[in-house]
Amino acid sequence: MADVAQAFVPGHVTGFFTTEPDSDPTKAGSRGCGIALSDGVTVTVQPADATSVALNGEEISMGAVERVLDALDVTAAVRGVTDLPLGSGFGVSGAMALGTALGANTAFDRRLSRNELVTIAHGAEVQAGTGLGDVVAQAQGGVTIRLEAGGPHTNVLDAIPARRRVEYHVIGGLATEEVLNGNTDTISMAGKKALSDVVEDPTLNRFMRASREFARESSLLTTRVRDVILDVNKIGGTATMAMLGKTVIALDTGLSDAGYDPQVSKVYPTGAALEPAQRQ
Amino acid sequence: MADVAQAFVPGHVTGFFTTEPDSDPTKAGSRGCGIALSDGVTVTVQPADATSVALNGEEISMGAVERVLDALDVTAAVRGVTDLPLGSGFGVSGAMALGTALGANTAFDRRLSRNELVTIAHGAEVQAGTGLGDVVAQAQGGVTIRLEAGGPHTNVLDAIPARRRVEYHVIGGLATEEVLNGNTDTISMAGKKALSDVVEDPTLNRFMRASREFARESSLLTTRVRDVILDVNKIGGTATMAMLGKTVIALDTGLSDAGYDPQVSKVYPTGAALEPAQRQ
Repeated sequence: MADVAQAFVPGHVTGFFTTEPDSDPTKAGSRGCGIALSDGVTVTVQPADATSVALNGEEISMGAVERVLDALDVTAAVRGVTDLPLGSGFGVSGAMALGTALGANTAFDRRLSRNELVTIAHGAEVQAGTGLGDVVAQAQGGVTIRLEAGGPHTNVLDAIPARRRVEYHVIGGLATEEVLNGNTDTISMAGKKALSDVVEDPTLNRFMRASREFARESSLLTTRVRDVILDVNKIGGTATMAMLGKTVIALDTGLSDAGYDPQVSKVYPTGAALEPAQRQ
Repeated sequence: MADVAQAFVPGHVTGFFTTEPDSDPTKAGSRGCGIALSDGVTVTVQPADATSVALNGEEISMGAVERVLDALDVTAAVRGVTDLPLGSGFGVSGAMALGTALGANTAFDRRLSRNELVTIAHGAEVQAGTGLGDVVAQAQGGVTIRLEAGGPHTNVLDAIPARRRVEYHVIGGLATEEVLNGNTDTISMAGKKALSDVVEDPTLNRFMRASREFARESSLLTTRVRDVILDVNKIGGTATMAMLGKTVIALDTGLSDAGYDPQVSKVYPTGAALEPAQRQ
């Protein structure tokens, strides 16, 4: 025990979602659908006298991570390394929370099950107000359909079985907390419609179409994001907005073909996992 | 559509199990716990005029695979490639069934969700009598705890969050069908006890101990398997029997240290997945 432990958590872009509040943060969350990305966050947890959190070498404050450490009753140095931008809809805070839970469980020999750790990370992210559905989708990987909200003890998950190249183009950030603290009725109504579309036809193409309709109907679509999506549509590609960020995601070479210089990633088919221990 | 598609499915060694019969094969199955292995089966599915199934280049008859193809209403050439032995407790038939479901869905553009495909493969394996719990564990990956039996619509899964080197030594095969068609009351009683031990302390070490006790109490332990396990114990290692095969699995370098020349594998942390398409 008291060793260093490391976990990799895929990034996650949400196409559409509902908000499902509950007084119990492990039951609260969202329904919806999104794509786990091969770009993710490598999280290292090491016991320390005082807790500190850093992302790409820079000390930051991250409510979800601190809550996870509190729940496990440990103090640790948590270090995240990623190519993904923070606050642009890639689930970086969810990845940090989940990676911290998986890493701390091993580093401190906490002997919790995987569901318990995912529950802690999900509840921490909900309480911190930084996400509603990323953690459970990042734990499963692939293109997760969240049929019922909450942590592993209450949610119902399915997935679109597909591998595909995914490109993304980041325009800027959106504050998840602000959107989630506003009136979310319109969002949830649009999210329910999109979810029923994808359940009827669980394919990536339908996911992209349902996500575009959701972005428009939820009024979350910004003008600049819309313009980029239209550029991709013009050359016959398919693109949508990553929730919640001013980010455009496209399948295949949609953004490249439209003349952008996107980041290139792909569907990461599997979920968050500990990295192999050097010795155990 | 009508393209070739390929999936990788990890092998799976069961440490202990119960049998949970049900007239609906998608609800029947087992509770228990096992380890997904980085050694697995790569399954290729290609549309063909007549169905044929081959493993490592040899044509075989495999009930679970044929049932999956029937359920999807397709005829195809299914090719499996693996280093794992058939009939020795590695879930090769489950891997073939699940890989066929994932591959055929893509190759024939069947547009089913991941849960639907896992359900089909699980039900086919149960009906063929070749396994009760491998498919759902292979779909999830890692060290899956099966808390409730059946396919994804009825089961409850958790996992031991651990990565570790796993060694295995194959003595010979055991006919799953024969054991499962016998009186399984003793097996299920021992399995329930082992499950409650692992739920209390979800660690790999406890899993190995509970599995050894299960092997003995269920009367499935054979003399030669027991002798190998004792050899590993003598040098301070930890080993148990893979259900259902005359196979010994050990953590870390247990079998090597005891003088055997084992196959070396490791916990495969994630579940079965389609391989990336060359073009899509």
